Amino acid sequence: MTTLVRIVLIDPSHPGNIGSVARAMKNMALSDLVLVRPRLFPHAEANALAAGADDILAQARIVGTLAEAIGDCAFIAGTTSRPRSYYWEFTTPRDIAERIVGLPEENRAALLFGSERYGLATEDLNHCNVLVRIPANPQYCSLNLAMSVQLAAYEIFMARAQPHSHTQLEMPLAPSGDVEHFYAHLLEVLNEIDFEDRTGHLMERLRRLFNRAQLDRNELNIMRGILSAVQGRRGQSARRSK
Amino acid sequence: MTTLVRIVLIDPSHPGNIGSVARAMKNMALSDLVLVRPRLFPHAEANALAAGADDILAQARIVGTLAEAIGDCAFIAGTTSRPRSYYWEFTTPRDIAERIVGLPEENRAALLFGSERYGLATEDLNHCNVLVRIPANPQYCSLNLAMSVQLAAYEIFMARAQPHSHTQLEMPLAPSGDVEHFYAHLLEVLNEIDFEDRTGHLMERLRRLFNRAQLDRNELNIMRGILSAVQGRRGQSARRSK
Repeated sequence: MTTLVRIVLIDPSHPGNIGSVARAMKNMALSDLVLVRPRLFPHAEANALAAGADDILAQARIVGTLAEAIGDCAFIAGTTSRPRSYYWEFTTPRDIAERIVGLPEENRAALLFGSERYGLATEDLNHCNVLVRIPANPQYCSLNLAMSVQLAAYEIFMARAQPHSHTQLEMPLAPSGDVEHFYAHLLEVLNEIDFEDRTGHLMERLRRLFNRAQLDRNELNIMRGILSAVQGRRGQSARRSK
Repeated sequence: MTTLVRIVLIDPSHPGNIGSVARAMKNMALSDLVLVRPRLFPHAEANALAAGADDILAQARIVGTLAEAIGDCAFIAGTTSRPRSYYWEFTTPRDIAERIVGLPEENRAALLFGSERYGLATEDLNHCNVLVRIPANPQYCSLNLAMSVQLAAYEIFMARAQPHSHTQLEMPLAPSGDVEHFYAHLLEVLNEIDFEDRTGHLMERLRRLFNRAQLDRNELNIMRGILSAVQGRRGQSARRSK
């Protein structure tokens, strides 16, 4: 058994690209495809370009939001060719593949690919643990969507095939859905304690911090416990002040 | 300066694939494209899929034989997904990329890609120093042509970008055109000495042997010298027996 790797296409415009992605995935022994708001799907052109990988298309799940696509995934990597200097970490498909192979088996990983024209939106990045940039010609760095999936999937295939020396994580990471509940809880507490959001980017920054840290389940439970404890104390003191 | 890497497409059927190949090459900072007997080229579909890599298409050279495509190249790698068990060496795009980066700068390298339907023909393989198979799902290992080029070009880009520990060759390898002259010379001598070709595959086997060895210029000169010496002795003995 190996860690399941999901390919998530967000707002894909061209059904042909979805078909080429399915073929590229199957070539590299991946099968879990999720489409967020595809413009045209199912579509004959997708099946034509899938060229024998129709099974991947037939199994593909269609959802309306990224959160639905990745709720059960514990490691989320977003691909982008644009510079995002404020973000915390940029790495390569090869490094990501090594890290995914190092995850505990029960953890699922997701690789996010944005629309052909615009790539990932900033709100998509806020779900990511890490950003990936495919090394390319700086004068011409925009790869076709299916090519990007092909390269990332290839690196995963290579990493799985090779004996590797990466660190194997002991404790499973917390699934993205659980991390979202933590963020909601955190926001609730911040509001309760009247914490001032001076820049208007507070939650974004907190998300980056915790996404970077990649909380495991124990740590998430601890954080939730702290938040509950803060609320409990406030409840007590609220009761006391009555 | 780095070793020039040429992409050679043999009998490509679909102009769209040629365009996608051009884009994939430019993404990975390659520009030397040679087309052997393209079915349809130039073609609007090629330019449409090149998506800004039209310059690669405009510079592409069209030739009628593989020998013309690679005469000035010293390291020839053929990609194939079919098993060719009789052939001497199969390796990966990653290994090939390392070897190409290790070539002396004046040596040119060529990567050969066969037609979409049939791949490389056996006569194409006879020009190769090494065969490359892209690691892939054994149940579904046939990649799209442009995807194969993308992966190979990516590995070359990665190898060029990284400090590497491969062996740097000291003496330049002999260009393919010179090696062909050697094979012609060898065949000439074999005929002159009435060497019996029992299997009908003699030259094929000799080509494999010397291609595997990857003759450098000195070695090629030595071999040519030996052949000439054999001819000179026969010439002498022929004169003597008159």
